[in-house]
Amino acid sequence: MDQERAKAAFDIRELTYLLDGGKKVTELKERMMLELERDPLFKMHDIHDISKDELRERTMQKFSSLLHHLQNEPVDQFRKRMEVVSMLDPGFWTRFGVHYGLFIGALQSNATPGQLGYWFEKGALSLNGLVGCFAMTELGHGSNVPGLETTATFDEASDQFIIHTPTLTATKWWIGGAAHSATHSTVFAQLMVNGKCYGTKCFVVQLRDPKTYACMPGVNIGDIGKKMGRDGIDNGWIQFTNVRIPRGNMLMKHTKVSRSGAVKEPKLQQLTYGALLQGRVAMVVDSGNVSKKALAIAIRYAAVRRQFSSSDSTIETKLLDYPIHQRRLMPLLAQTFAMLFTGSEMTTMYNEMMQRLENAKPGDSDLDEVMETLKETHSTSAGLKAFCTWNCLETIEQCRQACGGHGYSAYTGLAGMYQDFAVQCTWEGDNTILTLQAGRYLISSYREAMKGKKLSPGVGYLNRLDQLIGKKCQVKELEDLLRPEIIIEGWQVVCANVVKNAAKEFEAHLARGKKPDDAYEECSQSRLYAAKLHTFGYLYHRFVDGVAKVSDDLKLVLDSVSLLYGLYTIEENAGAFLQYEYFSPKQIEFIREKTNALCKVVREQAIPLVDSFNLSDFMINSPLGRADGNVYEHYFDQVKRSNPQGEHPYFQRIIKPLIERKSEADDEEEDDEAAGLESEDEDEDEEEE
Amino acid sequence: MDQERAKAAFDIRELTYLLDGGKKVTELKERMMLELERDPLFKMHDIHDISKDELRERTMQKFSSLLHHLQNEPVDQFRKRMEVVSMLDPGFWTRFGVHYGLFIGALQSNATPGQLGYWFEKGALSLNGLVGCFAMTELGHGSNVPGLETTATFDEASDQFIIHTPTLTATKWWIGGAAHSATHSTVFAQLMVNGKCYGTKCFVVQLRDPKTYACMPGVNIGDIGKKMGRDGIDNGWIQFTNVRIPRGNMLMKHTKVSRSGAVKEPKLQQLTYGALLQGRVAMVVDSGNVSKKALAIAIRYAAVRRQFSSSDSTIETKLLDYPIHQRRLMPLLAQTFAMLFTGSEMTTMYNEMMQRLENAKPGDSDLDEVMETLKETHSTSAGLKAFCTWNCLETIEQCRQACGGHGYSAYTGLAGMYQDFAVQCTWEGDNTILTLQAGRYLISSYREAMKGKKLSPGVGYLNRLDQLIGKKCQVKELEDLLRPEIIIEGWQVVCANVVKNAAKEFEAHLARGKKPDDAYEECSQSRLYAAKLHTFGYLYHRFVDGVAKVSDDLKLVLDSVSLLYGLYTIEENAGAFLQYEYFSPKQIEFIREKTNALCKVVREQAIPLVDSFNLSDFMINSPLGRADGNVYEHYFDQVKRSNPQGEHPYFQRIIKPLIERKSEADDEEEDDEAAGLESEDEDEDEEEE
Repeated sequence: MDQERAKAAFDIRELTYLLDGGKKVTELKERMMLELERDPLFKMHDIHDISKDELRERTMQKFSSLLHHLQNEPVDQFRKRMEVVSMLDPGFWTRFGVHYGLFIGALQSNATPGQLGYWFEKGALSLNGLVGCFAMTELGHGSNVPGLETTATFDEASDQFIIHTPTLTATKWWIGGAAHSATHSTVFAQLMVNGKCYGTKCFVVQLRDPKTYACMPGVNIGDIGKKMGRDGIDNGWIQFTNVRIPRGNMLMKHTKVSRSGAVKEPKLQQLTYGALLQGRVAMVVDSGNVSKKALAIAIRYAAVRRQFSSSDSTIETKLLDYPIHQRRLMPLLAQTFAMLFTGSEMTTMYNEMMQRLENAKPGDSDLDEVMETLKETHSTSAGLKAFCTWNCLETIEQCRQACGGHGYSAYTGLAGMYQDFAVQCTWEGDNTILTLQAGRYLISSYREAMKGKKLSPGVGYLNRLDQLIGKKCQVKELEDLLRPEIIIEGWQVVCANVVKNAAKEFEAHLARGKKPDDAYEECSQSRLYAAKLHTFGYLYHRFVDGVAKVSDDLKLVLDSVSLLYGLYTIEENAGAFLQYEYFSPKQIEFIREKTNALCKVVREQAIPLVDSFNLSDFMINSPLGRADGNVYEHYFDQVKRSNPQGEHPYFQRIIKPLIERKSEADDEEEDDEAAGLESEDEDEDEEEE
Repeated sequence: MDQERAKAAFDIRELTYLLDGGKKVTELKERMMLELERDPLFKMHDIHDISKDELRERTMQKFSSLLHHLQNEPVDQFRKRMEVVSMLDPGFWTRFGVHYGLFIGALQSNATPGQLGYWFEKGALSLNGLVGCFAMTELGHGSNVPGLETTATFDEASDQFIIHTPTLTATKWWIGGAAHSATHSTVFAQLMVNGKCYGTKCFVVQLRDPKTYACMPGVNIGDIGKKMGRDGIDNGWIQFTNVRIPRGNMLMKHTKVSRSGAVKEPKLQQLTYGALLQGRVAMVVDSGNVSKKALAIAIRYAAVRRQFSSSDSTIETKLLDYPIHQRRLMPLLAQTFAMLFTGSEMTTMYNEMMQRLENAKPGDSDLDEVMETLKETHSTSAGLKAFCTWNCLETIEQCRQACGGHGYSAYTGLAGMYQDFAVQCTWEGDNTILTLQAGRYLISSYREAMKGKKLSPGVGYLNRLDQLIGKKCQVKELEDLLRPEIIIEGWQVVCANVVKNAAKEFEAHLARGKKPDDAYEECSQSRLYAAKLHTFGYLYHRFVDGVAKVSDDLKLVLDSVSLLYGLYTIEENAGAFLQYEYFSPKQIEFIREKTNALCKVVREQAIPLVDSFNLSDFMINSPLGRADGNVYEHYFDQVKRSNPQGEHPYFQRIIKPLIERKSEADDEEEDDEAAGLESEDEDEDEEEE
């Protein structure tokens, strides 16, 4: 490992500062990692062996530790802490986030200032006597919020709403925190006033008595039980049977219901872009962060593990020195950097936009432009959320397989990481549905561009279709293919083509008389394809933009990494580049060779790059990913510590009777004799014996 | 669901017979499924909620049930039973297979007839007082058997071998059955006689006293503990410290050691192709079988689940009616059939070859040809094992994601299926290493073909390179692209090109002075790519061959399915078809459209096709995959049954103190007062309050 570290051709610490966003952030994160490591509530060594019930208890116990920090440090700092926690213990992060992200978030989005103050005063912020959850999805209804079945019927006589679950499929399902944690819930239900349905609105419903945690009358709650991962979260189901709540528990920032049952709907559809966008950008960052951890394990292990010897050596070869192993891991390492740079650039963009939007007043001259960029970023982020979470899940699995048999052990960490991360492909918008949304936006942008509208920068290439469609890559030397501007142009040409094709397909369906929604469905495979290529092109572009800004010392290594990412993604999508003839077969062949060569280049810096992630051994929590490279000792220690040697647990009860049983043939013979029967082929039997 | 079944355009039962290999086999499997369902030891409804320790006990208990059948039915029938069991309970299947497959298999491959008889008499066949395991892999050594470190040193004085673990990395690791089950093990160790090492040989070592299950002197065993899946298997680690065994415990079918320490090595390298090949073909079949189960769940759920409504309907649309959902699942369904047909054809080929080989005598005129075909099938099966297990793992994950949030519940079965199956990509040869072996064989075949050698049928296209390289697809009408012979030719052209390229790369490295092994390493990415395309082409070819044989009634539907598979795999590998210009961009575009269209066609028959898999609800063990389509009720029942409502488990202990705590601000103030300190900005504080 020292050998590998000696190869560093850049200042590792500087790269850490760059990735973290500055020296101060790095030091803050280091302090937090240490605090977590020394916090007995966060002990991690036994996490793979405790039961779901123990895990849930321990997860709840951690609340007190985080609450302390929440009340004693600035909110930005606390956010950073939660980011660190999310990498260490995603189950706890989610459970804590149900109250502080989802429940409080729903109040902030839907409550009037007065209502917000009321709930904060009741203890919502400080978790005093009030723990919240977020009841949106139902057993029969996931992403389709307008299709929810739960009803909230206004009863004028009592000035109350009656919350009711009319069918089995209306049962609130997957509700994090419902099974054990929550006293209150924000509930999404169809607002019914005087027999008329006004669509899905948000209500606060008390679920339990905070003094006893007994369910309130009419509230029936159960446990969803065992999941693929994140078992520290107590997901539950809830059925409401004519539960009455005061009228004021409807959150009335947007739609209002008066004492007399008059419903006042908002003039404009509320702007929900912001909140969704923030969640998605966070998941791009998270995909980068979790990939870091997975790659730290697989790459460090590959620098230590030796297998087979080359023809002229007696010592076995390091996995990392095998070209095929470099091919398995180096592109994924490059992709991780692409996600990290993109996440960081998107965060900046998001913050700037939200600031502009918050200060905006109706009639502001730049409001249209801001809204346009917001819409574009909103759609792009849908694609990014989908492909980055898919990328990360795939990275974890590839890292797991790259560790061979040891990747299947729970203690090496990658199995659990997969199980915990897998849900990210579904929640906050199913990935496939999000890609379709992104694709739909691309089609409509194309159609607007054709009408002469100037699009926002992220899809600006659609304003230059006549330059891009049919364009072939024109370079004098094959080496010129490695210039970022050529690769960016290539992506734009390919994306312009696939978006155009998807739009043409859409229009053909319209021309055949389909309604727009149905026409969109029919071209959904093309939408997905367009969204995929657009997203990969976007990631590369943001990565290159980010690298352009860094200091010379880091630029050299990051140029290799970003070029590897660019070439690798072209190779992966070679079909599209050849289909639209931007690259020739010969050029693609060159790109393939260069990808191999770059894997070797990046491999030389692999350990320093992984070191720059600056994750402590405690955070990585895998013996294979130990910084000291002493993997076998740590692994053996972990296995022995988790499985103490001792008495055989079931020899007497199960094995002894099995291996000392009389043979069944003997039994049968005895039975036969007892029954006075003679075997038909008795003679034969005897001969055989 | 009835609606969907009414669409059947073929006789479902006939297809079941075809897939199973005849009516009798179907009926046999039905009987076995019923027997398992009624066997209390095989209860499955609580399997997701019991602990690893409980699961292991229950797994061991099942031995008695299977032993009964093993001793009372013909071996072919018992094999079929084990195939059924493997789909229901892969953990048990493995644990049982450790003794009957690995341990007995090692005896059969390595023992002399006398030794085999000795161990059978001691109870190895009947499991009387003797349970075996198979100790090959070591902590620091997986696939590399010649690199194992454990030693077996002959001690002439005592006529014994001394089995010894010299280092930590030599610890036997992952040994199934070692932690709790086994009394004996076949141990692979370096044979040392008079200071000379003769390489890895196989020895039988007693691990435990069968009367007490205490470890024998010098034998140190521990539990490997928690894994990603298959927790019913008690994998263990073993360290030997100068353990003495009689000389006769070395299995001497091949190498022999005499009383005086004379070592007689076999003249010819033993032929191990057969055993390896059988295992790989079994894994192709298994990949098909597990995919069946996953798709039965996802497709039946998609036929019931409704989400969002189309523009002109109030009732929500079935997932299965969305073009994108058809795109997610139908190609995987087609691929499953491809694996099933290929597995069945390979099994026949294998049996024929082994029969020819068993009857062969040295000097037989056709021996060379048989050996050539065996070598080819051996290599092809390496690629098939790798890509089919990868396909299956991907299918499970895609099915899981296609079930949305419910796919994340343990009770819907897909999460556990993934966790259990994942190990198949590593064991019996790590997939990546196997693809490289397959690629190496392709390169050497190419080089032999260039020298004029006639290759065996599976790689016969390499004898026609001059016809294939540079060939473009010549069809009058685009519709002609849908003819199987065109697709087969396309695969051959593409494979001929990639194999040639890999071989050229290999030769270029040789020319630069690399040794062959190193040259192979350097072109490993090209080897992997060649093996991938060869394997997919092979799967399609076998699928088409298989379908050509079926009756007219089934042919129509299977033609659609096999065409979908062919077009889908071309689309997935469009880069290669465009790179070598077999298809033009326009033709690829047509193939893309037709793939969409075929997904719709196959979707119409999706439920009948899934029904033809003939898996009982008990076998599928997922409420989402219920044959009656009543998914929500079964799912809710399962969740309630597994998680009975009751007292809150930790309100008093954990939550109450948390939500009723005094605020820390109060505490601090009190502390300050007690310490006699004044807050610096006391005034401000008061103002804020």
